[in-house]
Amino acid sequence: MKPCAVFDLGGTKTLVGVVSAEGSLLCRTVIPTPKTDCESVLARCRTELTDLLAQAGMSLSALCGLGVSLPGMVDSRRGLLLHAPFAGWRNVDVAACLAQLLPSLPMCMENDVNACALGEMRFGAGKNCQDLLWMTVSTGVGGAIVADGRLLHGAHQVAGEIGHVCVERTNGARCTCGGLGCLEAQASGSAMTRYVREACETDAALKARFAEENLSMDAKGAAVLAKAGDERILALFARCGRYLGRGIAAAVNLLDPELVVLGGGMAASLPFYHEALLGAMAQELRPDAVLPRVCETPLGYDAAAIGAAALLFDHVERMGTPCLG
Amino acid sequence: MKPCAVFDLGGTKTLVGVVSAEGSLLCRTVIPTPKTDCESVLARCRTELTDLLAQAGMSLSALCGLGVSLPGMVDSRRGLLLHAPFAGWRNVDVAACLAQLLPSLPMCMENDVNACALGEMRFGAGKNCQDLLWMTVSTGVGGAIVADGRLLHGAHQVAGEIGHVCVERTNGARCTCGGLGCLEAQASGSAMTRYVREACETDAALKARFAEENLSMDAKGAAVLAKAGDERILALFARCGRYLGRGIAAAVNLLDPELVVLGGGMAASLPFYHEALLGAMAQELRPDAVLPRVCETPLGYDAAAIGAAALLFDHVERMGTPCLG
Repeated sequence: MKPCAVFDLGGTKTLVGVVSAEGSLLCRTVIPTPKTDCESVLARCRTELTDLLAQAGMSLSALCGLGVSLPGMVDSRRGLLLHAPFAGWRNVDVAACLAQLLPSLPMCMENDVNACALGEMRFGAGKNCQDLLWMTVSTGVGGAIVADGRLLHGAHQVAGEIGHVCVERTNGARCTCGGLGCLEAQASGSAMTRYVREACETDAALKARFAEENLSMDAKGAAVLAKAGDERILALFARCGRYLGRGIAAAVNLLDPELVVLGGGMAASLPFYHEALLGAMAQELRPDAVLPRVCETPLGYDAAAIGAAALLFDHVERMGTPCLG
Repeated sequence: MKPCAVFDLGGTKTLVGVVSAEGSLLCRTVIPTPKTDCESVLARCRTELTDLLAQAGMSLSALCGLGVSLPGMVDSRRGLLLHAPFAGWRNVDVAACLAQLLPSLPMCMENDVNACALGEMRFGAGKNCQDLLWMTVSTGVGGAIVADGRLLHGAHQVAGEIGHVCVERTNGARCTCGGLGCLEAQASGSAMTRYVREACETDAALKARFAEENLSMDAKGAAVLAKAGDERILALFARCGRYLGRGIAAAVNLLDPELVVLGGGMAASLPFYHEALLGAMAQELRPDAVLPRVCETPLGYDAAAIGAAALLFDHVERMGTPCLG
């Protein structure tokens, strides 16, 4: 199969690239997401793609299509971006816009978290897997579900919101959604940063440690200390792991996946909380349940871009020709 | 479409019947489930079907197939009953057995809780609905999920186990599965019975009330007092409702269904705990979430039998001819 182009629009950065049929990013350019309307961002992506192809000596006809990953609520069947809270975009007809910008290129689009799950299925840890849970554990916690080989969208295009499953009903932290004790409020990168700062408030030695090592007092700085074996920090990661295990247990009871793949900034710290996660998950599952494997994405920060390509390739194979979602 | 035959094997009772293309049970017979191997139960069902058809003046050729609902873990694609704990049956080749018993009749089979969800989609509260959660709230709590119009099975055929989602981590009750605070342990008919008995232990007047009214001290007797407006009993139903709302909220976050249908003995008591359920559900969902409708099944105790028929009719329509799972 020919390679395809991908646009991966993110809250801060946007990636434009070309992905091979084997799932490799052949070339790419990353720009800060312009603070404009969505249509202008897409036009800018088209320009970047033209430049990228020129540099690589490729033409549009060398591509089998375009896969697009979008942040927010997407109606992939109708080709609409329903709502992207980070930018306030609403009801953007992405399909129509791209049909004008790149009329020769068949197009598929998906929400970025969903795209990650599809990328994982085709090119990542989920090859040969029909039932998979993807979790982005970053500033927030997002999720996407593949069940019986198909991405779930739900009645209102918001399936997969594992970040708002309640995992703490006793003094749960306030979530950005307004809820209390959501997984996102208890185990995201932001939650880990909060735990670190709270710990440093009562533990001057720990605070000094961050200063000595010239580390930021957040999840990223904490990962450095955890790697060095700091028990106090490892205990905080374990707390996140226990909450993640609770949330995943609810998903496993309901969905029976064989694999859980973690992405986002906290995924690289999985070794620090893997055991706590598995323990909490096992505790909240039936003793005879088959526990899913839990791993870090091998696709790293490119998961959504590669997932956008997987989406397009899947469609090409299923439909014979690429189609708009 | 021609009517179909249904076998609905239950832990205590087994229904053999004929269901019209419109979803009505045209005739039926209900027998205690024989305490034998599964093959003998199926042979007995065949005999009952022959008698039933003779009484109704129908022949096998008047049927378009046979839908079978089975208790326990089912591999519907391969036509196997993997495990039925109530009887200790394991790895029964139901498809092969029925191909011998009723060679002229195309057959589909499904787990009984899954069958209920399918019945609801085709003939019940879920018509025109693509995303639905079915819950059997009875001695235990079972669940089945329809997402994007398809029943979810999961990697190990155990998707939908909402009864074992943890809803109480502070002094949660021990569940039959060995877990603590499972939805089944906190909000099943058995849990309600436990709440009633605990209440009667410390409230002699309440206990006397059950005796005066000649009611059993269980969920069923409690429903009679709740209907009469007994505040103490209504508070116990509300407790179950809150737990159900918590479990459903987890499912709504993950699956985004538009409808939740309750069946089983506790479903008829929904009016006593509907408000508490909706309140707890709303509390554990994002404020902008679209709440699903929650209702009692209109199919009553026939849901699984009618669901077995729905399964067969769905296959006939999809495949052109009825097929084994």
